[in-house]
Amino acid sequence: MKSKQFSDLFTRLREKRPLVHHITNYVTVNDCANITISAGASPVMADAHEEVCEMVTFAGALVLNIGTLNRGQIESMILAGGMANDRKIPVILDPVGAGATRFRTDTALRLLDELKVTILKGNAGEIGVLAGAEAQVRGVDSYGVTGDLVKIAQHFAKRAGMTVVVSGATDIVTDGRRILLVENGHPMMGSISGTGCMAASVTGAFAAVTDDPVMASAAALAAFGIAGEKAAAGARGPYSFKTTLFDEMAALMPEDLASGARIRIR
Amino acid sequence: MKSKQFSDLFTRLREKRPLVHHITNYVTVNDCANITISAGASPVMADAHEEVCEMVTFAGALVLNIGTLNRGQIESMILAGGMANDRKIPVILDPVGAGATRFRTDTALRLLDELKVTILKGNAGEIGVLAGAEAQVRGVDSYGVTGDLVKIAQHFAKRAGMTVVVSGATDIVTDGRRILLVENGHPMMGSISGTGCMAASVTGAFAAVTDDPVMASAAALAAFGIAGEKAAAGARGPYSFKTTLFDEMAALMPEDLASGARIRIR
Amino acid sequence: MKSKQFSDLFTRLREKRPLVHHITNYVTVNDCANITISAGASPVMADAHEEVCEMVTFAGALVLNIGTLNRGQIESMILAGGMANDRKIPVILDPVGAGATRFRTDTALRLLDELKVTILKGNAGEIGVLAGAEAQVRGVDSYGVTGDLVKIAQHFAKRAGMTVVVSGATDIVTDGRRILLVENGHPMMGSISGTGCMAASVTGAFAAVTDDPVMASAAALAAFGIAGEKAAAGARGPYSFKTTLFDEMAALMPEDLASGARIRIR
Repeated sequence: MKSKQFSDLFTRLREKRPLVHHITNYVTVNDCANITISAGASPVMADAHEEVCEMVTFAGALVLNIGTLNRGQIESMILAGGMANDRKIPVILDPVGAGATRFRTDTALRLLDELKVTILKGNAGEIGVLAGAEAQVRGVDSYGVTGDLVKIAQHFAKRAGMTVVVSGATDIVTDGRRILLVENGHPMMGSISGTGCMAASVTGAFAAVTDDPVMASAAALAAFGIAGEKAAAGARGPYSFKTTLFDEMAALMPEDLASGARIRIR
Repeated sequence: MKSKQFSDLFTRLREKRPLVHHITNYVTVNDCANITISAGASPVMADAHEEVCEMVTFAGALVLNIGTLNRGQIESMILAGGMANDRKIPVILDPVGAGATRFRTDTALRLLDELKVTILKGNAGEIGVLAGAEAQVRGVDSYGVTGDLVKIAQHFAKRAGMTVVVSGATDIVTDGRRILLVENGHPMMGSISGTGCMAASVTGAFAAVTDDPVMASAAALAAFGIAGEKAAAGARGPYSFKTTLFDEMAALMPEDLASGARIRIR
Repeated sequence: MKSKQFSDLFTRLREKRPLVHHITNYVTVNDCANITISAGASPVMADAHEEVCEMVTFAGALVLNIGTLNRGQIESMILAGGMANDRKIPVILDPVGAGATRFRTDTALRLLDELKVTILKGNAGEIGVLAGAEAQVRGVDSYGVTGDLVKIAQHFAKRAGMTVVVSGATDIVTDGRRILLVENGHPMMGSISGTGCMAASVTGAFAAVTDDPVMASAAALAAFGIAGEKAAAGARGPYSFKTTLFDEMAALMPEDLASGARIRIR
């Protein structure tokens, strides 16, 4: 890949400092706020139906995360997502725990149906379930998918007209046509709560400064993954790793992304 | 105590990696998620009445915490707790702030009445109030109990048919018959928000891998307390202590629990 | 300024350890809890309408923060605030994002109208909007105010009969008559989420131990700012800065406040 494209995107993100509107869970929301700042954007969390449409008009991206879903949030996601669609503001959906309960699966499918989702990002189980494949999810963890994950993602992306991101040791990014594989990251990212949610926030930050959601997703996952690799180097355990992850994300420069990104076209 | 029993339990926890379903407050929920992972289990937070019954069926334990109680949560606690009872999944109740307001006291009593709670874990004031003793609670802090705390806990446990855990400098664990006193821990654990909630999460993790809630509680409190002791050693202040607490919990090995546990039978 | 007054206030805070009742957002609530403890007070978070009136009666101060506002919270803020007013318990309002959406602006104005707010603390944009000046807010960030900020704050304070605090590189504290300028703090405080909310918590802690909200606000902002200055000294990035910020706040002694406070009378 032309790594210059990624570093240019990162430069633009740091210059523009876009607002990233989150409607998200209360478990990892603080992590999402801080990683958004570290990435170079500005987070805002607002989920009341009275204000989400107004708030999202100022945003460069809208991140929807169903990690602690409730009925009021669904209404707000539909409202904010609709306004984002009208304004051509990219919508990132993180269907946390889809497949674990019918409520989450149904809600994720409803959001995909009623909104134009720009980027759907989940683990193998979540994406598998939503794509209609055989997949297993326990709680918020993926327990595997039957079939070729790349093909499942690719067909799903093509059919739904969106970019699909499957997180894993190798992340898959596809819009049905292009397939990028991102190999950055570190196993320690699985030793803390919130890295999946944070990846969606960073993706929102990058998506706010380009019209190309495939490039935005790959750049975001590579940047966040490189920060994870650097943080893992000296970590004494999961929470000191977490501390350093934010520090490294904030310290990451466009040239670090250019030199450190391990992104392949498949 | 035969410390081998505790270390075997810890080994089993790390091998099985049970799911611990939390319905908990939004203040310390991230700490609960991360300590659950550090202990060796997998956390899931879900509190919508539409999904709690389905979610809890995958769990090894259900942790109910009333730290930021609201009406919707009570309904979900009753639903999830009922399903957990049907499936013989242990239920841990942390009655945060019981005694501080009638709403919290009444809700805790209602949960104890309508559900079969396996382990009730609180500070002296909270347990005292729920046991019907003279006790004082201000906010979420205990301000003492009149009477012999061990006897109060023991009688309460016997009468209610559950395990009662009273946290403090020395933790009391009793099912009415057996009484274990756990002397692990460090005063710095009181210098941050969330250690009480985290102790309940770790207890849930241990309770998921044994039928003996007394042993599970004592092992959990000893393990968490040892992590606290180790973290206090080099801490420069409360938040660096907190960071190291997670690191030490993740690094703790079954043999550390065997050698470090200070548990007495009374 | 007589720095002895500030250090005496801090000594009293550490001795009395007042309860600070928060009705606040779910993004930075854990930070608010921990900074309250580090400052020397005891936090309690409770927002159910069933209990807020009872809970606030035990508190030394009530902190209202509209960072993730919803309809239920407004009702609870009105109820708790009314009881606080009856009991002469100081009320601190942090109108996060006022000006960004009509819902936030209207709610902040309603709270100012229906309650006797003791201290209103916001950034330039938020205060400007509520004071009726020309001001711009995007998300939860201030984008400037047209006019002399000190005069706007002073007139607003006089008109509303409250203390107004405008946070910024130089913080403005005024009750309409006195004007104090606090120059403590560090730019790194803007590199993490939550410092604004934390400043309100620390202000609540100080306000709980004096009848003078101007002195309480200035002392709180100076103390928190000094902790920020110390934390910035060795920080490797935003999250290690955050960790050290709590540590430094906890380690701060009254004499550090006396010697480090940079407070001018204007």
